[in-house]
Order: sequence, then structure tokens, then C-alpha cells
Amino acid sequence: MKTRVGIVGFRGYSGAELVRLLEHHSSAEPWLMEHRADSADQPRPRGHAGPPRIPCTQEAARQEKIGLVFLATPADVSMELAPAMLAAGALVVDLSGAFRLRTVENYAKWYKEQHTQPKLLAEAVYGLPEFYRDAVRQAPLVANPGCYPTAANLAIRPMVESGVIDRAAGIVCDAKSGVSGAGRKPTLKTSFCEVTENFSAYNILGHRHVPEVLLTSGLEEAQFSFTAHLLPLDRGILETIYFRVKPGSDGESILRIYEDRYKGEPFVRLYDPGHAPDLRSVQRTNLCGIGVKVDAATGRAVVVSVIDNLGKGAAGQAIQNMNLMLGYPETEGLL
Amino acid sequence: MKTRVGIVGFRGYSGAELVRLLEHHSSAEPWLMEHRADSADQPRPRGHAGPPRIPCTQEAARQEKIGLVFLATPADVSMELAPAMLAAGALVVDLSGAFRLRTVENYAKWYKEQHTQPKLLAEAVYGLPEFYRDAVRQAPLVANPGCYPTAANLAIRPMVESGVIDRAAGIVCDAKSGVSGAGRKPTLKTSFCEVTENFSAYNILGHRHVPEVLLTSGLEEAQFSFTAHLLPLDRGILETIYFRVKPGSDGESILRIYEDRYKGEPFVRLYDPGHAPDLRSVQRTNLCGIGVKVDAATGRAVVVSVIDNLGKGAAGQAIQNMNLMLGYPETEGLL
Amino acid sequence: MKTRVGIVGFRGYSGAELVRLLEHHSSAEPWLMEHRADSADQPRPRGHAGPPRIPCTQEAARQEKIGLVFLATPADVSMELAPAMLAAGALVVDLSGAFRLRTVENYAKWYKEQHTQPKLLAEAVYGLPEFYRDAVRQAPLVANPGCYPTAANLAIRPMVESGVIDRAAGIVCDAKSGVSGAGRKPTLKTSFCEVTENFSAYNILGHRHVPEVLLTSGLEEAQFSFTAHLLPLDRGILETIYFRVKPGSDGESILRIYEDRYKGEPFVRLYDPGHAPDLRSVQRTNLCGIGVKVDAATGRAVVVSVIDNLGKGAAGQAIQNMNLMLGYPETEGLL
Amino acid sequence: MKTRVGIVGFRGYSGAELVRLLEHHSSAEPWLMEHRADSADQPRPRGHAGPPRIPCTQEAARQEKIGLVFLATPADVSMELAPAMLAAGALVVDLSGAFRLRTVENYAKWYKEQHTQPKLLAEAVYGLPEFYRDAVRQAPLVANPGCYPTAANLAIRPMVESGVIDRAAGIVCDAKSGVSGAGRKPTLKTSFCEVTENFSAYNILGHRHVPEVLLTSGLEEAQFSFTAHLLPLDRGILETIYFRVKPGSDGESILRIYEDRYKGEPFVRLYDPGHAPDLRSVQRTNLCGIGVKVDAATGRAVVVSVIDNLGKGAAGQAIQNMNLMLGYPETEGLL
Repeated sequence: MKTRVGIVGFRGYSGAELVRLLEHHSSAEPWLMEHRADSADQPRPRGHAGPPRIPCTQEAARQEKIGLVFLATPADVSMELAPAMLAAGALVVDLSGAFRLRTVENYAKWYKEQHTQPKLLAEAVYGLPEFYRDAVRQAPLVANPGCYPTAANLAIRPMVESGVIDRAAGIVCDAKSGVSGAGRKPTLKTSFCEVTENFSAYNILGHRHVPEVLLTSGLEEAQFSFTAHLLPLDRGILETIYFRVKPGSDGESILRIYEDRYKGEPFVRLYDPGHAPDLRSVQRTNLCGIGVKVDAATGRAVVVSVIDNLGKGAAGQAIQNMNLMLGYPETEGLL
Repeated sequence: MKTRVGIVGFRGYSGAELVRLLEHHSSAEPWLMEHRADSADQPRPRGHAGPPRIPCTQEAARQEKIGLVFLATPADVSMELAPAMLAAGALVVDLSGAFRLRTVENYAKWYKEQHTQPKLLAEAVYGLPEFYRDAVRQAPLVANPGCYPTAANLAIRPMVESGVIDRAAGIVCDAKSGVSGAGRKPTLKTSFCEVTENFSAYNILGHRHVPEVLLTSGLEEAQFSFTAHLLPLDRGILETIYFRVKPGSDGESILRIYEDRYKGEPFVRLYDPGHAPDLRSVQRTNLCGIGVKVDAATGRAVVVSVIDNLGKGAAGQAIQNMNLMLGYPETEGLL
Repeated sequence: MKTRVGIVGFRGYSGAELVRLLEHHSSAEPWLMEHRADSADQPRPRGHAGPPRIPCTQEAARQEKIGLVFLATPADVSMELAPAMLAAGALVVDLSGAFRLRTVENYAKWYKEQHTQPKLLAEAVYGLPEFYRDAVRQAPLVANPGCYPTAANLAIRPMVESGVIDRAAGIVCDAKSGVSGAGRKPTLKTSFCEVTENFSAYNILGHRHVPEVLLTSGLEEAQFSFTAHLLPLDRGILETIYFRVKPGSDGESILRIYEDRYKGEPFVRLYDPGHAPDLRSVQRTNLCGIGVKVDAATGRAVVVSVIDNLGKGAAGQAIQNMNLMLGYPETEGLL
Repeated sequence: MKTRVGIVGFRGYSGAELVRLLEHHSSAEPWLMEHRADSADQPRPRGHAGPPRIPCTQEAARQEKIGLVFLATPADVSMELAPAMLAAGALVVDLSGAFRLRTVENYAKWYKEQHTQPKLLAEAVYGLPEFYRDAVRQAPLVANPGCYPTAANLAIRPMVESGVIDRAAGIVCDAKSGVSGAGRKPTLKTSFCEVTENFSAYNILGHRHVPEVLLTSGLEEAQFSFTAHLLPLDRGILETIYFRVKPGSDGESILRIYEDRYKGEPFVRLYDPGHAPDLRSVQRTNLCGIGVKVDAATGRAVVVSVIDNLGKGAAGQAIQNMNLMLGYPETEGLL
């Protein structure tokens, strides 16, 4: 029998992607948990009802034996629902920023508000399996990483760990995201006529995803310059990362660091030096693609990292975490 | 009587934009000069013939009293045509890279081919009016700047000139361009299905527009990291420029440097600190928009520079140069 | 001295286009009339203030000697403001559907609500200059036509007038519009991620623009099938119109009917038989392009009609009406 | 052991989609058959080789025991390769127009060239499983239908069969397609800058897909008006079909005709009266979605039919045909 997996926020883009992925999963099945009916459902063809639908309450979760709940909700809603779902005996994967930053001080600094669940915050595991796989397997509550930090950390942490990087010179991460990363709620900024044929920078040097990169990579804030941009497209993140490497490094040697680090990883794809992956190569997948270009003479290095913000950047990675938490093969439903 | 202005390469995107702009110019009128009919004309409505059309020869240019010729042609064609048009008594604005790099050595290094007109190369004036206005006024041959270097130089040179920048830490310029920058010739890379919903980096650390930035800004190659990206949109360039500023600088002080430098410049627009212009604010104009964000505590600075690659990045700037060369008001036909 | 022209609803797409067009008009100047500040202004570059701004009241309009007011507002707001602006001595061009349908019964049938200004409704002139030019010149209140009906009526009425059409067989008008036609207010339907790479039909056989076509063309409802579709693009309407022609008609004879009807019209462009204009040929203009294909053997005819929904479909046509009402050359500010 | 299935033209959009779908098929595996290496391969990540690759010859097909070959090639290439592949013992599904029109006369009329394989043309089965399922099961050579005719026939034939339609009044099919329908070969018409923010009609009343609709639906050419349009998007076809129904018909009764006809069909989805499916609902699937709106008072009816032109309109339907020809479950690899 399949494990029943609840999705709160199933009308949003991440939530709908979770439903879509779970409908093809061999060991889990999606159950829609209605929290606030604040948006219209998609029309469905005649005779094709969707997954079962229950209220998002502790009682309903317990009674229907929901084994795991995805919270595809804003941070404040996640802080409210996570304790209830855990109390109902369900594991929880939270896709908001509520449980990613480890301390209430750090949360208050970047999210400009008080954290209401300090104990859960301290216990939550950061769900980037390539670095925290064993902890995820044991965790009742997993904080699914942000989309920008996922692409950044997979590219940056092996560089920092290996010591190849010249930290003093600083690292620049120029990030570009599709519009679905901003969620499904209609706003002027995400209106078609404002976005099409347009491109803009936002949250320059102050994006709240920055602390996730600092925590995982070990960089200090002064060493890391990050700017987000809005691409006129639906899905995908591309980050262009600039740094200086220690003398003697070239494209092949940088690439070998990645290959050593990601040997056996099912969702990281590396490209030959000088070949950078485009968004197309990862859209609608749980993959992260990484390409490298180094000018050995001057020590300048550029790494391009791509993911699908709804895949490895949200719902895909959440399913990967679920697979680890429930003991299924890590790639189940994701290839 | 209006000055007759020839356009070679009028079917390309820059050439067509020149025609469009000249059709509204009060002192000049477009004449199409047919060099190679390698592409279909746009269908025209009944009863609406286009501008006059003559062959692109020295004789025709002289006979029709063409006062100035725009070469919206590849570099090799420009090297062939520029001497002929000058010999016919016409001034020349060349939109290719043929005459931008000052020395045959520099040209050979970046364009991987021999320059065939070394004398003209040495005499040509680099047509960035905000820095070389007086020289442009006297020049028979103006090299219209590349699109990427225009956005970069207008943002970077005041920083370098003022000494506010920490050159040792290096400058990163992450550049994104619309597809029209690649020209009208059909290629797989610029096919709709390859571009839509996609985004990619190209020419990482090796773009041939780099030397134009080095020449104008005074930076050395090892200090300047440049990567170009292809946006899924028609027109516009946005460059996000990262550097470190000397202690004591903040957003307002950086902005004052720009304001001092560009006082009275009709085509440079500055924004309040923290507000970065988007592509929409410059599309179909000859404007360059510049926004600044500085983290004074750490000295990290980000400048966003936007232009229309067919406007200030090509045809608009070419008209601006023409106005200077022919003694018209600099903004004529451009507001 | 320029006539002061007020724009109510200047933050919407039609209103902003009116401001943009008026900033280049030689005899009129835009004044922003603030009715409800329900949306953020665009950021402006330092030192570039916009047009003057006054409250949208009868007193302010009179005091500032506003000569004409554009109402780029919803129908209910237009019904409220039109009498006040007329009482202030201003002419009025209303861009909503409030005054287009001539009778309160017709308005109630299609707009599902009571009309509150029956007298003004009866007096308003329908501002399609190609058919009602003389009336527009005398009118204090002009109802600017809807975008879909403008493209439809310019294509259909000459066919009906000439008698070439087989009305019994019915006329099909398959209409496609860019997203700006839906206005600037954020909605899920006009969110980028819902629109990009998508296409859909809406208001099948029941669009409230239908009665404008019936009134102007003389067709009956049962003879006219109209469906609107949402294109994943910003600006432009293309309508593909199918009907049967009487024996003996071919592409050239149909085209001659249009040429006779539109001789001297500055904003109608006709194409050779078999060549249909695309949206590109009319975007950012006040033009309507018309192309024809007829299969003489079977009497099947197809007419393609294109406009810019913010140009000839809204702000452009409104300026054209203003020019007529204020006695300026009809094409002033529109070429 | 999986059946080896050859794909000729694997670099084109239909061919690449076949490879993608077959990589997830439980009973068949893709083999790339190299005919003309006229275009660059996509870069692949390190360590991820693609499917096996063999020359497209009779000998190679026989030797490698290729069980079925997809020809995703132009019509002239298909006419050349089909006999060779059949002689090698392989079944053939041809995605071109070469074998769809049954007679050499019909082929010559619409394709303006001689058919070189009249015997195969006469024997080929038209692969629209919803109507010709049993014949497909026995066929050595299946002509995979065109994209436009697939959407049209699934919507129109039940109307004609049931006699509900008023044929004398004619049927209008206004069809809109994404750009991938035009193939991967770069052309000016399919260049990004020509397509984005643009929309146009083409092949008005003369598209070569028309005869496929006539053959399958039983309509006569004079009764059927068809115009194709190019949408600024990658994948998907939406057809808006207008006709008159006999008195007494309404939305529900029309829908019941479809429900009776398509009961048990796995790939046809019907929507409640008044609800028309959009492209999003079928993209990347093998589904056809059909919605209906009828104005019972006037007998006007509109049917909206949507497919993915690379799914049910090409590769998806080709896999569906393959499943039937090889005796696999019809939906294998397609859900």
C-alpha cells in the first residue's frame, strides 16, 4: 500500500508540482490538504477527479494516516502547521524559509520578524541531500532549501571545501530566476505585461536567501555578493559565479574537484570545461548542471550552475528528501 | 534640403532601426544602399513605397550626393566598403567591430584575423560621445561602439576615473542581452524554440567586446571578468557590475560621481540609490539608465546599467554620432 | 499655448500610452488627474519629474482650464466622472464601454447592469473616425470604441455595405489579443506563468464587444460568431474573419472595395491579395492593416485585420478623436 | 529484452521527442539511425552517453534487428527510406506527409510533386488510432497524421458522423500552432526576433494539411475553411472550430455525441459545456482536449480542440501507433 502524503498549498506552483510528481511515484500517493481555499482550482476534464482532499487539521492527518506532509506555504503558515502535523505523527518537509536558518537571531535578521517555533527551528535538518543526506534520513522535520541557495551551494561549497578559492578576493553570484519562483499569487511584478520582453535586478546585495549560502558554504557575508534577477520565463535558475582560484588551477583541475565531490550523486551533472549548461538542460528535472571556465593565466574562474526552481529548487528536492525520510530509493519518481 | 544618408545592411536589425529613426529625422533622410540582396524584404502595404534605393558603389554614392553612410555590415564587409565610401566624399559611421580596436595587433588578438585597413583603423574615432564628443565632430570615420561596451563603459569609466574603485579586487561585469544583438541571419542558436523559456551563458571570459571596455575604461584584462548571456527577449542589455569601493563610499557618494560626470548629458539617466532601472525603461530609446547599490559596511558595490542594444547600443548611438558629424543638434531624431 | 488635456487612469496601460503619445504632441500637453491612487507609480530617473498632477474634480478641471479629459477608467467610474468633466467645460473621450451601446436596454443586456447616465448615453458619439468623422468633430462626449470592434468593423463594414457578402451563411470572427487588453490590474489570468507558452479561448460567443460590431456593421447577432483568445504577448490584436462572397468575387475585387472605401484614410493599410499583415506591422502605431484571400471557385473568403490594442484599439484612436474634436490635424502626434 | 526501435531524424524536434519518450518505455528502446548529420548534437554531460547510434541503412537495420523505424524526416527522404526499412524487416511509422493522402493524384495536388512510391502509398494505413485502430495493428507502414488534422479530425468527425452538423453552412477551422511545428531547421520565419511578441496567419485556405481532414471527416473542400497561424510559443495547437448545428442541439447534447464516440479512449479529454481547454492542459502529453459552446437559440456552435503538436500531433501519436503495431498496451510510455 502506498504511503499517503499530504500537500498543503497544492494550488501554488510548488504544491502543484508536488502533486504532479507524486502522481507518478510508485510508493507514495498525494492527498490534498485544504488549508485556505484562496484561489480557484484548475478546471478538470469530465470524469477525471483529482487526488483525495481532506482538511488540513491534526485530526484529519491522524485519522487518514498521513505519513508525511509537505508544507508549500508561506513561512508564517509553516510555523503554525508544522507542530500540528508532527503531533499527528507525520513527518514534515517544509518548503518555506521558516526552518532553514538554525537560530532565531539569524531568522530575525533576514526575515525581519520573530520566529514562533524556536525549538523546531533548532531541530530541523537542512534538506540538501548532497551534503546532509544522513541527517535527512533521521529527521522528523526537514527544511527544504531555497531555490537560489541550492544552485549556489552545489557550485560553491566544493570550491570552498577544497581550498582552491581565493576567499579574500570575494565571490560574486549573479543569479537569474524564472517567474514561477515568485509564487502563484497575482502581483504587478509578476504580471505578464510587466515581465515579457523585460529583465530586471532585485534585492541587490540583500536577498533573504543569502544566509542559506553562508551557512552551508562557510563564506562570510562580506565575501559574498549576490544579486537576483527576474527572467521573462516560467521555470529555471541560472547562476553565474565569479571567483579567483589559487595559482596552478585550470578548468580540468576545478572540474576534478567537482567530480570527486559528486561521484555517484544521481542529480548532479558536470560538463566539459568551457561548456556551460543552459536552463533547457534541467527544466522539469531534479538535476543540477554545473559548467566551468577558468583563465589559468589570470586565475579568474566562472562557474555556471543551473536548476529548475520548481524541481531541484523546490518540489523535486522535496520529493528527494521524502524518499530519504521514508526509506525509498532516493531517485524514485524523479527520473 | 535634407542630407541624404546611406544605409548599407538595411535589412538587418540595426540597419532597419536606422531606417526607422531616419524616417523621423528633420535634417537627414534615409537612402537604402544595396550591397548584397541576401534576405527577403518585409512586405509593404499597397501604395507605400520605401525610401530610395541605390547600389552600394562609390559612383552611386558620389552621384547621388550621399553625405554620410552607415555601414551596418560584418567587419570584413566594412573594411571593404569604408575606403570606397570615404573616397566618394561621404562621412562613414561603421557599426561593425572593424575600426574599434585602434591597432592591428589588438584586432588580430580578439578577432582572429588580419586587419586589411591599418591606416583607417588608426585614424578612426571611437564613437562614444559622452567621452569622445569633440573627436567625433571632426572625424570622417567613426567606429560605433559595441552594445556591451557601451553599457559597460558608461557605468565603469566614471568609477575608474574617480579612483573610488578598488582595482586590485577586480571588477565583474555580468551581461545579459536580447536576441536581436545576434543579428537577423537565421541560426539554430537564435531560433525561437531554442531561445524561448531558455537562458544561457556564452563566450565566458572571452568575448570580443572585452577589449573595447579595456581601452575606454583603462582596466587591465586580468582585472575585468566579463560573461555574456542570451535573454529570451528581443531588445535590451542589462549589465550587473560588481566591484569594491574604497572606505567611506556609499550609494549617494557613488551616485554623485555619476551626476558630476554626466551633468547635461541628454542620454544618461540616473536612479536613486537602491533603485535599478529595468530594460523596459530604455527600450526603443537612445538612453542609458544607471542604478547603484552599495553596502557601505563591507565596501561591496553593484551598478546596474541598461541600454537598448539596437538604440544606444547600435542605431541610436550611430544617429547621435551622425548628428555630431553633420553639425545637427545631438538629440535630433532621438527623443 | 498647448491645450491642457487631462488623463484619468494614467497608471493603466491605455492611460500610460495616452501620456506617452501626448508628450510628443505639438498642440496638447498631458495633465495627470488623480482619481484613485490604487497602484504604484513607475520609478522615475533623478531630475525627471513627470507631467503636472491635479485631483480629478470638477473644480480642478475648471480652474486649470483642462480642455479635454480622457477617461481611461472602468465603465462605472466613467459614468460617474463624465458629467462632472463636461460640467467643468471639458470635452470628454471615454475609453470604457460606458457610452458605446446607444440605449440603456442594449447596455443592460451586454453589461448586466443598469446605466446611470441614459441622457449622456443617447448623446455620445461612437468614435470610429473612418465612419463617424463628422459627428466626432461636433461631439462633447465621444465613446472610444473597443479594441476588438475596431479591428472587426474596419474589416467587416465595407463588405456589408458593398453587398458582396453572403449574410445568410454567417460571418465568423476569430479574434486574438495580447494581454495588455485585459488591463494592468494583477489577476491570475494575466499572470506571467499562466500566460507564457499558453493560449486559450475565452468569452466564446458571448463577448461584450459583440454589440459594437452589430451596431456599426449592421449584422444581426445570429449572423455573427465571435470568439476571443488570449495571446502570450503584450500588444496587438489579429482577427481572422471568414465569410462567403457572392459569385464573381475574387481577391482583387474585394480589395478594390476596401480601396474605394478607405481612399485617403491615413490609418488604414491594405496589402496585396494573399498577403496578410502580422502584428509587428502595426504595433506601437495607430494603423489598421487589412489583408484578403479569396477562393473564387468556392466563394470562401478570409480577411485578416490587425491593430495595436493600445494604439488604434485604445489610446491612439482616442488621440485621433481628440484631434478631430479640438480641430487639430487628424494625424498629429500619431505618425 | 526490449525491442530496438530506430529513429531517423533524431535531431529534429519530433525525433528528439521520440527519443525522450522511448527512454522511459518499458518494452522498447531507442536507437539513433544516422542519415544525414546536418545539425549539431546537443552537448551531453560528462559520463552520460546517449542511445546507441547506427547508420541508417538496410544492412544495419537488419543486422541490429531493428524492429520498428520512425521516419522523422521530410517527405522525400521518407519515400526513399521507407522501402529500405521495410525490406530490412522493420515496421515503419512515417511522420512526414509522404504516405497520408492515399492516391498519387491527391498527393500531387497538395504537395506539388510526384509521388515515387505509389504502391506503398496505397497500402499505408493512416495512423489515427481513435478511428483506424484495427488497421494500424496489422499495418507494416503507418502514416502518422499531421498535427493540425489530428486536432481537427478528433473534433470534427464525430460531428459529421452524427449528422448534427449543417454541412451546407460550411465549417471554419481557425488553427494556431506553436513554432516547433515548423521544425528545427533555422529560418527567418522561425527566428526568435521575428516570432516573439508577434502573431500571423499563413497558408490561408491552402494548407497541405487540409486534405487529411477531408479524407477522414468526409467533408468536401468547399465546405471547409482552414487558416493556420503561428503562435509565439514552443509547443501546442489550438483549433477553434465554428459550425451550425441542427435545431434542438445544445452544449450537453453535442457533448454526449463526443462522450459516446470516445468512451474508453485513453487520450481524449472532454470538458463541461462552456469550458474550453487551454494549451497548458495538454502540453507534454499525448492528450487531445475538447470543449464545446453552443448558442441553442441561433444554432451557432464553437468547438475548441487542443493537442501538443509534438505529442498527439507527432511523436506521442507515433508511439501510440508503435504500441498498437508491436502489441504493447496502447498507453505504454505515454501517461
